[in-house]
Amino acid sequence: MAVRVATNRVVALAARPAGFPSESDFELVEQAAPEAGPGEVLVRVLWTSVDPYQRGRMSEARSYAKPVQLGEVMTAQAVGEVLESGDSRFGAGDLVVGQLGWQELAVARAGTLRRVPAALDPPTLALHAVGATGFTAYFGLLDVCEPKPGDTVVVSGAAGAVGQVVGQIAKLMGCRTVGIAGGPDKRADLLGLYGYDAAIDYKNDDLRARLKEECADGVDVYFDNCGGDISAGVHTRLNVGARIAICGQISQYNAERPQPSFHPGLLIVFRARMQGFLVSDYAARFDEAAARLARWVAEGEIRWREHVTEGLEHAPRAFIGMLNGENRGKALVKVADR
Amino acid sequence: MAVRVATNRVVALAARPAGFPSESDFELVEQAAPEAGPGEVLVRVLWTSVDPYQRGRMSEARSYAKPVQLGEVMTAQAVGEVLESGDSRFGAGDLVVGQLGWQELAVARAGTLRRVPAALDPPTLALHAVGATGFTAYFGLLDVCEPKPGDTVVVSGAAGAVGQVVGQIAKLMGCRTVGIAGGPDKRADLLGLYGYDAAIDYKNDDLRARLKEECADGVDVYFDNCGGDISAGVHTRLNVGARIAICGQISQYNAERPQPSFHPGLLIVFRARMQGFLVSDYAARFDEAAARLARWVAEGEIRWREHVTEGLEHAPRAFIGMLNGENRGKALVKVADR
Repeated sequence: MAVRVATNRVVALAARPAGFPSESDFELVEQAAPEAGPGEVLVRVLWTSVDPYQRGRMSEARSYAKPVQLGEVMTAQAVGEVLESGDSRFGAGDLVVGQLGWQELAVARAGTLRRVPAALDPPTLALHAVGATGFTAYFGLLDVCEPKPGDTVVVSGAAGAVGQVVGQIAKLMGCRTVGIAGGPDKRADLLGLYGYDAAIDYKNDDLRARLKEECADGVDVYFDNCGGDISAGVHTRLNVGARIAICGQISQYNAERPQPSFHPGLLIVFRARMQGFLVSDYAARFDEAAARLARWVAEGEIRWREHVTEGLEHAPRAFIGMLNGENRGKALVKVADR
Repeated sequence: MAVRVATNRVVALAARPAGFPSESDFELVEQAAPEAGPGEVLVRVLWTSVDPYQRGRMSEARSYAKPVQLGEVMTAQAVGEVLESGDSRFGAGDLVVGQLGWQELAVARAGTLRRVPAALDPPTLALHAVGATGFTAYFGLLDVCEPKPGDTVVVSGAAGAVGQVVGQIAKLMGCRTVGIAGGPDKRADLLGLYGYDAAIDYKNDDLRARLKEECADGVDVYFDNCGGDISAGVHTRLNVGARIAICGQISQYNAERPQPSFHPGLLIVFRARMQGFLVSDYAARFDEAAARLARWVAEGEIRWREHVTEGLEHAPRAFIGMLNGENRGKALVKVADR
C-alpha cells in the first residue's frame, strides 16, 4: 500500500547571492506533495547533500549547467527511499540516489536514479566516497591526470569530499601525496585518516615554503579544487610533463569579479597539460567506478568521515558552513529517518 | 682542401632588453674563427633565422631553456655549408641546419645538425615550412590538438611562420580554419596564400564580433601563438571538449610584468584541455614531420613566403621588425652567398 504524504517541504532559492551566500538567500516552502507519473519515481529523501558546485547553480553566469531559478528547489544529490514507482526498474522500499534536491519528497525520471546497493553501509556513502564526489576523484585522477607510480600528486581542497578520495586513490596507484587544506583539524585528518604523505595547512603554514619542502622533486600531478593563490603557489613547482586537473575553483566561487589567475605561457615552460572535466561526462562508466570504490572502502583502503547536519531546514546553514570550511568530513543533511 | 677563414663575425647579446628590445641590446663582434674538434662540424652560415622564442632567451626569467649570456652569440636556427667535419656523418660542402646562431661561422656537435636534402628548394625551407616552425605546427596541431574533420580551428599569429603552416595542415585534415593576424596585408595572405577559410585582422576588426560570425558553431581547436586579449576573445567561443595548444604567447614576451590572463575555471565549463608543448620534445619524430611537410610543399598543399633581410649585422633589426609584425612571410637573414 502506497504511503501518501499530503505536503512536501522544500528549500528553494529565494535570491541570487551577491558574493558569499547568506541564509536569507533561501526559503523553506510547503508545497503539495508531488505524484509520480509513468516512468517516474516518487522518493522520500533521507539524506541530502551540500557541495561546492551548488554555488555555481545559484548564479546566472554562463556555466556548464542551467542555474536554479528563483523559487525553485535547490538542486542536490540525495539518497532516499522509493515510495511509488512508475517504472519497472524500481519498487517501493528501494534505496536510490540521484539529483533529488533539498526537499522531503522528490519525483525523478527513473533513468536519472541509481540504486544504492544493500551492501553499501552506510548508504550515505552513495553521496560521497561511492557516489558523485568519489566518481569525480576517480575519473579526474585516473583519466585526466594519468598518475604513474612515484609521481608527486598535490591536491588542493584535500580534506574535501573529492580531495580526500583523490589522495587515497593516488596512494593506491603508488604516488607520493601532498594535501593542502585549511586549519589544523583538516591537516590532522589528511595525515591521519586520509593517509596523505604530507599535509599543508594553507591558513597557518607558509604555503610556498612548505610546497618547496614537500615537493622537493617537483609536482607531476596537481588535482585542483581551489584555484587562486593556492594554485599559483603549486604552479611554481610543476615538473616537465605535469598534468593539472581543474575540478573546482572554490576560491573563486564567491568572488563578484573573479580575477584571472593563470599565465598560459607557464604550460609551455613545463610542457604541461591543464584540463577541466565534469563527472557527468563519465556517466557511462559510473558502474565501474562504483564497484572499485565500494571494494576499496570495504577493504579499508579508502577511509571517510561524515559531517551531518540534522533537519532539512538547516541545509542552507550546512551549505554556508561547508563553504567556510567548518565541516570536518563530507557535509550532509539528514532529512528523515529511514 | 679545407677553407680557412681568419675571423668570425657574430651578433652577441649586449644587454638584457627591458621590455621591447632595441638594436642597442646587441653588438657586432669580430672573433677568431672557431675550429672543429673531433665529433664537431665547422659550418659557414648562409641564412640565419629570427623567431619569437628568441625573446625568451634574452631574459633571465625561468624558462624551458637557459638564457643567452651577455656577450654570447644569439642563439638561432641557421642553414649553412659544412667547411670541415670531425664526424663521419657530414663532409665538406654538405648543407646542414641547426642551432648555429647569428654568426658567420659556427661549430656544432654533429649530432645536433640535420642534413638539408638536396631536393629541398630553396634550402631555406629547412628554416620554416620544412624546419623548426613547420615541425612546431605539425606536432602542435596533430599531436596536441588532435583535430577531427569538421572541427573549427582558430589560429592566432596565423600569418607567422608557425601559424601559416598550422592553418594549411588543418585544411588538409578537413577542418574549417579561422586565422587571426594584424593588418590588411597579413589578412590578405591568410585568405589568399595560406588558404584560411576566414581571416580576422585584430588591429582593425572588432575581434569578438568577427569571432562570433566566423565561429558560429564554436571553436573546437585553438592554436595559440599570442595569448593576451586575443586569446581571451577566443576563449569565449570554445566548444565542449575544446583543445587549446599553447605554442607561444608573443603578446606577453615584452611585458615587464605579464598579467595573468586566464581563468582555469573556464576549462571546467567547456571540459577543455590546454596544453603547452615544445617542438624539441618531438625530436625523435622530426624525420616523419620533415618527410610529410616536404611532400606537402612539393605538391603545393603548403605554401609559404619569405621576408629576407640581407646582412648578418641587420639581424637585430630583422628580429625587432618581426616582433613588430613588419615582416610578411618567414623572417630570415641572409648571411652569405652559397
